[in-house]
Amino acid sequence: MDILRISSTQNPRVKHLMALQQKAQLRRSEQRIVVEGARELRHCINAGYTVETVIYCPDIFDISSLPTSRCELMEVSPQVYEKIAYRGSTEGVMAIVKALSDIDLADNPLIVVLEGVEKPGNIGAVLRSADAAHATAVIVCDPLTDLYNPNLIRSSIGAIFTVPCVACSSDECIKFLIENNISILTAQLQDSEPYYTTTMSGATAIVMGTEATGLTDVWRRAATAHIRIPMQGALDSLNVSVSTAILLFEAVRQRQS
Amino acid sequence: MDILRISSTQNPRVKHLMALQQKAQLRRSEQRIVVEGARELRHCINAGYTVETVIYCPDIFDISSLPTSRCELMEVSPQVYEKIAYRGSTEGVMAIVKALSDIDLADNPLIVVLEGVEKPGNIGAVLRSADAAHATAVIVCDPLTDLYNPNLIRSSIGAIFTVPCVACSSDECIKFLIENNISILTAQLQDSEPYYTTTMSGATAIVMGTEATGLTDVWRRAATAHIRIPMQGALDSLNVSVSTAILLFEAVRQRQS
Repeated sequence: MDILRISSTQNPRVKHLMALQQKAQLRRSEQRIVVEGARELRHCINAGYTVETVIYCPDIFDISSLPTSRCELMEVSPQVYEKIAYRGSTEGVMAIVKALSDIDLADNPLIVVLEGVEKPGNIGAVLRSADAAHATAVIVCDPLTDLYNPNLIRSSIGAIFTVPCVACSSDECIKFLIENNISILTAQLQDSEPYYTTTMSGATAIVMGTEATGLTDVWRRAATAHIRIPMQGALDSLNVSVSTAILLFEAVRQRQS
Repeated sequence: MDILRISSTQNPRVKHLMALQQKAQLRRSEQRIVVEGARELRHCINAGYTVETVIYCPDIFDISSLPTSRCELMEVSPQVYEKIAYRGSTEGVMAIVKALSDIDLADNPLIVVLEGVEKPGNIGAVLRSADAAHATAVIVCDPLTDLYNPNLIRSSIGAIFTVPCVACSSDECIKFLIENNISILTAQLQDSEPYYTTTMSGATAIVMGTEATGLTDVWRRAATAHIRIPMQGALDSLNVSVSTAILLFEAVRQRQS
């Protein structure tokens, strides 16, 4: 395949790429996202995503190390790469990828629901734990960030491509969980029992709110059970990605031991 | 008590404060640290640390909200505060505090050991989980950062003052654990058993290495048991603060249920 060579930051393709990185609205309307970094891109390819265009700087990155036979290749100068790189630390390669958004329910699903979690880095960290626990999906309700925010992709180290992840409203999500007979366990400090006395071996959704305000009443009312991580210290909260990991791995323990 | 009022960034007290923030060597030799932010400072005071000097900007912070009767007060102008603030997001108050470094072994101790963990933010996040799990202490071996790095204090949200935390060499730490009959459980993927089949209800130290290279042989050889978190996804590691929280809360579960 021909390689497109670009050395001007004013090139329309470069401008389109930067717009995709910066505008969530454009990512949504085109159903396209930008993935930066070799490791992230490899996860993305292995997970079966359609990688349309690979953009790389040959001075920094050896393109032969990636399976790109079905992708358009765009070679850029170091000046252009520096302009388009979202983070300086990446390795001279990025790609434009078609977005996906489906959940395929396995037997005995284990789902993480995040309500209103704001920081892309926290959602990314939750995805990373969900990958390790082999969770069925992560559902982000009423999101304040889009799922293909560059910080989210980066902090997930590619888990956004290995764990099915969708966004929807809380009402849609509750309907989906009830229709599929999935227990709704809401993490909350009040009116709750310690998580390790709660059964998580059946079809389970673990529902987390924000660190600051917790879950809304919609979720508290929809819950099958309210669970808490007993806080025994002087501080009053854990990071949401840490709490999620503790609860997910309790489900793993119950399912395996 | 008289209030010292400073409006020049060239004032020697201001210069000393900035040197304490920037130089780990000076913090070590003076056994003094700088704590920024009202929440962090409150934990520090509640934990019984000696707060020598409270520096605040009256335009931003209401000093009457903190119990400062036994501290020297230093009032600074917004210009000076902007210069000395390590992070712009803090609330107009910081303090110079005497450092502590002792571990008081409770009954049935639960200790976290971090070997070679580099990022201050990761150590801070581990301290936050250690607080929630009411761990006895966090021991940082062969540290690549000092324990009173401003990023570490901030990411611990004050847990550095609620959980005893010391730094030493791996050899000293191993000697201490053996002398006190504390089981050494090393987290490693090879030659290990799932963590939830390992007893953590007795005196236990959970030993974590870096995400990139894991633990050194010194620790592997010193171990009572090798434990692992089964990784079931496509990625191959969890964040060290997430792994530590999963293991700590398994110890909590075993001790309580």
